[in-house]
Amino acid sequence: MFELTSTDLLGRLGTIKTAKGTIRTPCFVPVVHPVPDKNLIDVSTFQSVFDVDLIITSSYILRKRFAEKKLNLHELTSFSGPIMTDSGAYQALVYGKIDITPENAISYQELIESDFGVPLDIPISKNDSYSIAQQKIETTLERCKNIVNMKQDSDIIWLGPIQGGKYLDLIEKSAITISGIDTFGMFAIGSVVEIMNDYRYDILLEMILTAKQFLDPAKPIHLFGAGHPSIFPFIVAAGCDSFDSASYALYAQDDRYITNTQTFLLEDLEAFPCSCPMCLSSTPQVLKQQTKKARMRFLAAHNLYACQAEIRNIRRAIYSGTLWELLENRATAHPNLKKGFDVLKKYSTLLSKNAPSTKRKGVFLLSENSFYRPELLLHKKRMKNIQFGERKKLFLISLINSTISETYSLVKLLKEIIINNQFISENYEVWLLDPYFNIIPLEINEVYPLVQYIGSGNISKEKIKNDILNSLKFIDSNNFKRIIILGELGPINSIINQQKLFQKLKIESIGFSFKDSKINIVRDIINNLIKF
Amino acid sequence: MFELTSTDLLGRLGTIKTAKGTIRTPCFVPVVHPVPDKNLIDVSTFQSVFDVDLIITSSYILRKRFAEKKLNLHELTSFSGPIMTDSGAYQALVYGKIDITPENAISYQELIESDFGVPLDIPISKNDSYSIAQQKIETTLERCKNIVNMKQDSDIIWLGPIQGGKYLDLIEKSAITISGIDTFGMFAIGSVVEIMNDYRYDILLEMILTAKQFLDPAKPIHLFGAGHPSIFPFIVAAGCDSFDSASYALYAQDDRYITNTQTFLLEDLEAFPCSCPMCLSSTPQVLKQQTKKARMRFLAAHNLYACQAEIRNIRRAIYSGTLWELLENRATAHPNLKKGFDVLKKYSTLLSKNAPSTKRKGVFLLSENSFYRPELLLHKKRMKNIQFGERKKLFLISLINSTISETYSLVKLLKEIIINNQFISENYEVWLLDPYFNIIPLEINEVYPLVQYIGSGNISKEKIKNDILNSLKFIDSNNFKRIIILGELGPINSIINQQKLFQKLKIESIGFSFKDSKINIVRDIINNLIKF
Repeated sequence: MFELTSTDLLGRLGTIKTAKGTIRTPCFVPVVHPVPDKNLIDVSTFQSVFDVDLIITSSYILRKRFAEKKLNLHELTSFSGPIMTDSGAYQALVYGKIDITPENAISYQELIESDFGVPLDIPISKNDSYSIAQQKIETTLERCKNIVNMKQDSDIIWLGPIQGGKYLDLIEKSAITISGIDTFGMFAIGSVVEIMNDYRYDILLEMILTAKQFLDPAKPIHLFGAGHPSIFPFIVAAGCDSFDSASYALYAQDDRYITNTQTFLLEDLEAFPCSCPMCLSSTPQVLKQQTKKARMRFLAAHNLYACQAEIRNIRRAIYSGTLWELLENRATAHPNLKKGFDVLKKYSTLLSKNAPSTKRKGVFLLSENSFYRPELLLHKKRMKNIQFGERKKLFLISLINSTISETYSLVKLLKEIIINNQFISENYEVWLLDPYFNIIPLEINEVYPLVQYIGSGNISKEKIKNDILNSLKFIDSNNFKRIIILGELGPINSIINQQKLFQKLKIESIGFSFKDSKINIVRDIINNLIKF
Repeated sequence: MFELTSTDLLGRLGTIKTAKGTIRTPCFVPVVHPVPDKNLIDVSTFQSVFDVDLIITSSYILRKRFAEKKLNLHELTSFSGPIMTDSGAYQALVYGKIDITPENAISYQELIESDFGVPLDIPISKNDSYSIAQQKIETTLERCKNIVNMKQDSDIIWLGPIQGGKYLDLIEKSAITISGIDTFGMFAIGSVVEIMNDYRYDILLEMILTAKQFLDPAKPIHLFGAGHPSIFPFIVAAGCDSFDSASYALYAQDDRYITNTQTFLLEDLEAFPCSCPMCLSSTPQVLKQQTKKARMRFLAAHNLYACQAEIRNIRRAIYSGTLWELLENRATAHPNLKKGFDVLKKYSTLLSKNAPSTKRKGVFLLSENSFYRPELLLHKKRMKNIQFGERKKLFLISLINSTISETYSLVKLLKEIIINNQFISENYEVWLLDPYFNIIPLEINEVYPLVQYIGSGNISKEKIKNDILNSLKFIDSNNFKRIIILGELGPINSIINQQKLFQKLKIESIGFSFKDSKINIVRDIINNLIKF
């Protein structure tokens, strides 16, 4: 059912096949009111005009309105693609008690021919104490285990609801239990609306990443209530394959105009910074003069175009392996997004699990945030496990300098020189000391992206010092019998003295700057080392 | 002729009135081939479909093709709005000598009824030595001074060409001379194409900012050859009001797709991350199957939509006073943009000249880059010049802490407490020590944006220490007779000891964290100070 074509971080480009049509992931799922004329956009145009693959609507509202009358969801909404329904959990959170049993919730979604359904779970409010949250989870999980007895045989794909709120251990428990129930074809993380409303993207991402670790990777993950498109790249990077939101319409009701990173009040706009058909057809000055209804319909359509464009942008980024760059860029849009990004950085090891071993593009190391890229951490982890061979002498070429921003051509030349120098290549380990990846054995320099990067060339001195110290400690632990250091020495010698490293060894070093030196000088120095 | 409605940094939202129509600034000026069928987009649709106000074409190519035959530029190009022509300078740079005199260049632009013309200037190549560049400048300036004698009376707005290449003192000289010639209604900075091609945005911005300082602010500034839209916000922030580029078409010729920050090869695209009419009408997979000609036309149209959308986005940012945030965001897209941004940061004082004293939105302080915002520097500069009154006692409330991200409500409450405490308000200067703006006299806290900010809440300890040191030195120079420090003490006391500050004074301090403390506790502490 769920097929992948590319991955980047925990983001997955793929398709979910259903009887009613194929859903491309990551997928934005607009929330639709089940009563057609309550929507600001004609839902019959969702597929043809807005390229929507999947919608979600509330089975609870439907049942309240039409009782148990048999009706066809697709005809009612005039949407012929797959439709997801929720069970009333959100209403339960907002209104307290609701008038439906777990059995009803299942049978009603079957009656109206939902394509994706969900058992009646109990969402957790941000104000719930731990013990209340725990009780709610127990009830939800009991109902989920029981779904086999409640459901008929049908084509419905059931979503396993993951609850737990801010209590990460409850999310873990919930995810482990739900992941073990075969009936579920997909998972859904809930109880995030209040957290979204408070812009607590840090908590949101902790929740998603916690769940993700314990969920069967073969099944897609949905997020109930994703809010504003500025958060889309982050929740995709954390492992969500689809997510619904009503924000395109809700924002429109308040004269708010959405972009991929921001929200503007119509009255604050001098021009529409977008090329969608709506924005090209009018100006803020003209729109302000129109009726409330006309403004809402206009803005809802623009907002939906904006959400869909960001989804295509995320797909593009996964395909080209540049999702991290997208996150770094989006994180500059608001301090709360930055705090969310900081959580992703903490989980960098988890994010590196699916990292492609090679990408279409070199990597941009743009800021201090880039030091948390999975590729950097993976390399450092690998280095700890590498076994080094017979050559007990080390030749360390230091490129570490706060202003070096790329090493590609330099390393290529160095490699030629070393390969042509039999004495060195037979007797010495040759390692680079790189400003971003730190220690790189020259033999593996072609591993992506050890030299396929462009840095911003302004690393703090603090960071450089710290990296040198860790690299030297690592070298020291390898018990070399001779060490020659060549190139950008910076604070290397003073760190060796201060930290009393290499006590049994006299380090030989020749310092020069790769910035100023012609590679010929480097060649001469290296070739002259034969005479040592 | 040039009227402004809003400014932000050196960016100017306004209009240039011409006989052929109004030009909105900042303005993107597409380069058009004078022979209609050589263009990838039908120029007659430029105004109605692409919202283009002004185009530029080469009078040199026209003259070569049609000799001195009288022709009407607007009919030929099928563009009824204002048209700018260049004189052949670019061809001179590419082909060496060209076959035209300075007098010819002027009279020919008059003959074909250009709306904006330029004298035959001599561009400077990046390989030109200083003395060659100097000679070229002399010749260009001589011709410019002579323009009064060469030109007829006509409606043409003449552009004064600023040359100098990477030699900033030549740019300065050129700008001073040109700015003094009344005939010019507008200025144009040249010789940037090679620099653009090398992505040396740092040199580019140095050039623009140097010229800007010496040019009459009443006249608009054009940039010849602005390249990719990712640089647009930066050149606008540096003072350019219009800029031409052929990149929308040139990139299309190589199957390249432009966004506001990036360029993609069509073959690397999985989806179009844009909502323009072109992108909504197709997919990369479909477009790849089409003919070269169809692909070029499609991509040129998309690329032009993308350039125009970024222009509207820049206008929006100037209008709402958020151009700096836009720069911070765009600077994360590529290390070379970051280097360009670093140049703007250096010129922060110049950028603050037109800063509005209040804006529609609070300020986001997103990263270390935000410390260079004009508002921060302006405040620090003002503080140095403030005269303090009779009250020779200081009450310093320290909010400096690396994790405090906003102070708005806290400062409001503090102000109430202080105003209600007659003893303190009569006898003490009350200053805040703020993590971003450092010293803020409580009396002026309502000056924008001293408390209207949201920070990212992760300032480095290094930076905090340095700011505290400078603030304490400033306080020390004010010879207070008593100083009470309250709140986040952090390293304050240890810095006082280390640096031997306040030698004649015993500093009284009460430390607590505003994060944990309820404001009531703060109120009690402050009110109890009466008893001192």
